[in-house]
Amino acid sequence: MKKIAIFPGDGIGPEIVDAARLVLDAVDQAADLNLQCTDGLVGGAALDAADDPLPEASLQLAMAADAVILGAVGGPRWDGLPPAKRPEQGLLRLRKHLDLFANLRPAQIFPQLLSASPLRPELVRDVDILVVRELTGDIYFGEPRAAEVVDGKRRAYNTMVYDEDEIRRIAHVAFKAAQGRRKQLCSVDKANVLETTRLWREVVTELAAEYPDVHLSHMYVDNAAMQLVRAPSQFDVLLTGNMFGDILSDEASQLTGSIGMLPSASLGEGRGMYEPIHGSAPDIAGQDKANPLATILSVAMMLRHSLGNELWAQRVETAVHKVLDEGLRTADIAAAGEAVIGTRAMGHAVVKAL
Amino acid sequence: MKKIAIFPGDGIGPEIVDAARLVLDAVDQAADLNLQCTDGLVGGAALDAADDPLPEASLQLAMAADAVILGAVGGPRWDGLPPAKRPEQGLLRLRKHLDLFANLRPAQIFPQLLSASPLRPELVRDVDILVVRELTGDIYFGEPRAAEVVDGKRRAYNTMVYDEDEIRRIAHVAFKAAQGRRKQLCSVDKANVLETTRLWREVVTELAAEYPDVHLSHMYVDNAAMQLVRAPSQFDVLLTGNMFGDILSDEASQLTGSIGMLPSASLGEGRGMYEPIHGSAPDIAGQDKANPLATILSVAMMLRHSLGNELWAQRVETAVHKVLDEGLRTADIAAAGEAVIGTRAMGHAVVKAL
Ligand SMILES: CC(C)[C@H](C(=O)O)[C@@H](O)C(=O)O
Ligand SMILES: CC(C)[C@H](C(=O)O)[C@@H](O)C(=O)O
Repeated sequence: MKKIAIFPGDGIGPEIVDAARLVLDAVDQAADLNLQCTDGLVGGAALDAADDPLPEASLQLAMAADAVILGAVGGPRWDGLPPAKRPEQGLLRLRKHLDLFANLRPAQIFPQLLSASPLRPELVRDVDILVVRELTGDIYFGEPRAAEVVDGKRRAYNTMVYDEDEIRRIAHVAFKAAQGRRKQLCSVDKANVLETTRLWREVVTELAAEYPDVHLSHMYVDNAAMQLVRAPSQFDVLLTGNMFGDILSDEASQLTGSIGMLPSASLGEGRGMYEPIHGSAPDIAGQDKANPLATILSVAMMLRHSLGNELWAQRVETAVHKVLDEGLRTADIAAAGEAVIGTRAMGHAVVKAL
Repeated sequence: MKKIAIFPGDGIGPEIVDAARLVLDAVDQAADLNLQCTDGLVGGAALDAADDPLPEASLQLAMAADAVILGAVGGPRWDGLPPAKRPEQGLLRLRKHLDLFANLRPAQIFPQLLSASPLRPELVRDVDILVVRELTGDIYFGEPRAAEVVDGKRRAYNTMVYDEDEIRRIAHVAFKAAQGRRKQLCSVDKANVLETTRLWREVVTELAAEYPDVHLSHMYVDNAAMQLVRAPSQFDVLLTGNMFGDILSDEASQLTGSIGMLPSASLGEGRGMYEPIHGSAPDIAGQDKANPLATILSVAMMLRHSLGNELWAQRVETAVHKVLDEGLRTADIAAAGEAVIGTRAMGHAVVKAL
């Protein structure tokens, strides 16, 4: 028996999670997984119910689970709240408490949706990038951090910080991922300016000897931001710190033109958390318009990484390709004139394709 | 009489500066500017000659000048040197000592080169972005910063820091730039995570009242990295801190597909420094292959911002458009099958078009 904690969150979160749940339940039955799924509150939904973006009960639920599925958090309703009371804090605290240091964000072109890419087709046809982003360190969590008034003048600061252990463990994840792929690892830093990333480069370089089959290269973050637009198919695995990874993984996701299709996994030593990379899209919430495929593909990643079930992970991925091949589209991925189906219908379609 | 300090730098730096010099000399004569140009050493060239990427003599030369023209710095020859002895340090110290806090980086499509963009033509046809990047603060210069060993474990850190005065002066530059353009200012931050950028948003918002004709919006840096790829023509002026600006301005420049065409200005209260945004391209150095147009357009920015000569700034820009209209191309901007001319010939062509 495996325990799954499910946090639908805000905006379109509940609908896309419902649709993904259809797929998860189908796999559970067919593969006899004996999953025990329990819902919890996080983000704005938790703020509304318990005045806390990550109530103790939710944290306990996540800690007791083998895997966590998360929809999306945030929305304009909670934008005015003080920093500690913002929906995103629920997400950041979950990552930190569960020690989910490895964020895997694939940016892969779906051939059926090639025309949705903002880039010329010949540049993106072969794009298949895995961003491995460190998720529990860096300037996101670095201390000291403060906003203060000194001699009547406001100033604020944050600390970018890494130690060698933090760098080493995420680098191992990236090297191993590269071994299972095209064996190209590009590590991103700003070693010409920042001490922190100079240590990053040093430690990553030291590990290369343990992975002689992987080709390691280094790239400055500004150049990486350029190369992702100029020639994205040069990349296989991109290894980044938390801050640079936030920026570059979003940039990379946009190359595909179908951000509604992209899943993510956040892994620690034990459990993992799985979520689509897109946001809570409050403007279309509750209208059965959202694309659930990123969440469904996140379920596939959960099957692979937390439940050790590669077979069914691939079956879910194949089912998603099949519905695309059949021409089924939610509004966000429909070309002009193409027929559109709703969130729930898309969930059912994937179940059928399974 | 105006004094111009010229730092050719490394790699293709000397050639592109020579070609730009042809244009500058022609303008000098025609407009009777009475310029006094003096060459100096910076970057790798200065390291070779004086074991210092910014020798005291070069700093004095720059301080005494009304404007500085810089080619490019850096190259693999100096990559092994310790941090303080790297070519880039010359550049960073120049920026800091001259207090060049405002980096203006236009990313503009040249209609003649539309097909060079990696993006679909319909998305980039109207791209005309000005990135206004803060250049003397942020994590680039923040203290404390160090690499250290604590209990046998290596760690390193840097400090992201801004005070309200630093934010205010760069924001004024951006608001004013927007007033002279399409009156849209988008300020970039990560206010949902970083105190430093929360202060950034606060101070920028306070200034909006002084510029009622400018429409101010805010965007998280990860979203900005996406939107630049997804729909770049939504942007007019993008205001950023030093670190985010390093990444986003390079990403934006790549949208044009012709980074060899893009100039930059770094302004303080007094003098300004002007340089192409591309690098030193050691692989083609000394071969008369480099594109001098970015440097020539940097000369135009100098005429505008440091010499108060809008008329001749526009004449230089018009001349560049004219040579493109005539089909003249250096290798980097030539489409397959197009005839190619060299660095020097391109400089002469612009002079002729003047
Ligand atoms: C919501 C926000 C705090 C988060 C981050 O910055 O990590 C998001 O952008 C992401 O990438 O998951
Ligand atoms: C060379 C480097 C230090 C510099 C920077 O990071 O500012 C460069 O990338 C730039 O953008 O001018």
